Amino acid sequence: MFIHETRVRVRYAETDQMGQMYYGRYAELFEVGRVEALRSLGFPYRRIEDDGVLLPVRDLHVRYHRPVRYDDEVIVRTAIVALPEARITFRYALIDAAGALLTEGETTLVFVDRATRRPCRAPGDLVAALAPHFP
Amino acid sequence: MFIHETRVRVRYAETDQMGQMYYGRYAELFEVGRVEALRSLGFPYRRIEDDGVLLPVRDLHVRYHRPVRYDDEVIVRTAIVALPEARITFRYALIDAAGALLTEGETTLVFVDRATRRPCRAPGDLVAALAPHFP
Amino acid sequence: MFIHETRVRVRYAETDQMGQMYYGRYAELFEVGRVEALRSLGFPYRRIEDDGVLLPVRDLHVRYHRPVRYDDEVIVRTAIVALPEARITFRYALIDAAGALLTEGETTLVFVDRATRRPCRAPGDLVAALAPHFP
Amino acid sequence: MFIHETRVRVRYAETDQMGQMYYGRYAELFEVGRVEALRSLGFPYRRIEDDGVLLPVRDLHVRYHRPVRYDDEVIVRTAIVALPEARITFRYALIDAAGALLTEGETTLVFVDRATRRPCRAPGDLVAALAPHFP
Repeated sequence: MFIHETRVRVRYAETDQMGQMYYGRYAELFEVGRVEALRSLGFPYRRIEDDGVLLPVRDLHVRYHRPVRYDDEVIVRTAIVALPEARITFRYALIDAAGALLTEGETTLVFVDRATRRPCRAPGDLVAALAPHFP
Repeated sequence: MFIHETRVRVRYAETDQMGQMYYGRYAELFEVGRVEALRSLGFPYRRIEDDGVLLPVRDLHVRYHRPVRYDDEVIVRTAIVALPEARITFRYALIDAAGALLTEGETTLVFVDRATRRPCRAPGDLVAALAPHFP
Repeated sequence: MFIHETRVRVRYAETDQMGQMYYGRYAELFEVGRVEALRSLGFPYRRIEDDGVLLPVRDLHVRYHRPVRYDDEVIVRTAIVALPEARITFRYALIDAAGALLTEGETTLVFVDRATRRPCRAPGDLVAALAPHFP
Repeated sequence: MFIHETRVRVRYAETDQMGQMYYGRYAELFEVGRVEALRSLGFPYRRIEDDGVLLPVRDLHVRYHRPVRYDDEVIVRTAIVALPEARITFRYALIDAAGALLTEGETTLVFVDRATRRPCRAPGDLVAALAPHFP
């Protein structure tokens, strides 16, 4: 398993009139989590796209345990739970400064050839970079 | 079961550079779907809040089958699958003009007392309005 | 001058914890206004893009007079104030059900060739469709 | 004059199908800029609200010079140009890694009493913290 952590400050734009983060905006924190996880492996998502591979999301699940609030600095813990083949699954935990679990999430993304828009396999060098984490 | 349909036009703001709706924005279409479903029952969500009850989302699931694209006019079909007690579950299907299923979703929301922020039961008149649909 | 009106219902997603529409989201209402104005002239923006012309925004001005609130059904009044050449300027007024002016805005967009990403002139048929409104 | 700089990484969520940041999302970068400027002065915006003062935006102006693109790490340079009284004006410049000016912006916000929702004067300690920068 590969685990990466990054921190994100909650914007006013992300709140709603209930006084907490709007439920649809958590997807952006997950995006930041997986993009930074990939960057830490040497694969900025922008480069993956430039190399001709897109990664649309196929499945999203969010479990909202406690509200995320304005100006909180949230830890986004991102895990890649298996070596990617045609798909890659990320699991997320949002954690507050006191260590409390705020939110859990999971996304499955599919590798798609940018030119043909058809499914393809995970880039070989990404799989190679992840392999040592799945002995 | 109670089913309601409404239509939403996809905004440019909702697209991303992949040329389709950003995966986090589907949550807004689901919001429109359930708000209009409640309105059709005589319960504008604004009035529920004014009456002292909030409805935060506890759980979200989205399955992205086919891309939703800019300027598409999408049918949001919203179903309430059981009489609400402490929670209410909505299921969604996004459908294009040709009748193709684009996206499926589900949200579970909890009834919360606005003053105490503690869980409460579904408003009695909302349950009464739904009851005829669950004979 | 060419004037067009459309109606937009404010989403919960668009509110912030101040209890009104987040200041950055008004840009989306303006987008809806100008897109529907162009559609009413026979020029869905999607078709303009398909014909090889992009319309990035060059300049935005918003004056927030009164808060736009959740679930309000707002009238978006959009005006095209001059025949477009290399640019097109839209003026917006958001108006509530009682006729009160909530917000004023203005955007200037530039015509850009999609292939070269260089400035170009307004499509001739769009200018022709607008000409009768600028006698 | 008081000037502060912070850095923001552009999210995929912020792009549109033109392949650049959606014009309404720049307002969020400006929000980050002014919030971090205030924090650096010892006034987290959250604390200003907790102290009973809201800061709704009255006026926004954005000039889009060059596109802001996905994954760019943009410098947000925020300036407070005068000692606040009933209003506070921020000017923004978005600057890329090579030092090029991408975007200019300006917002004017009004101080509002949270309880009465009526205009009020800038908190005295905020004015005091800014005073040394306006000799």
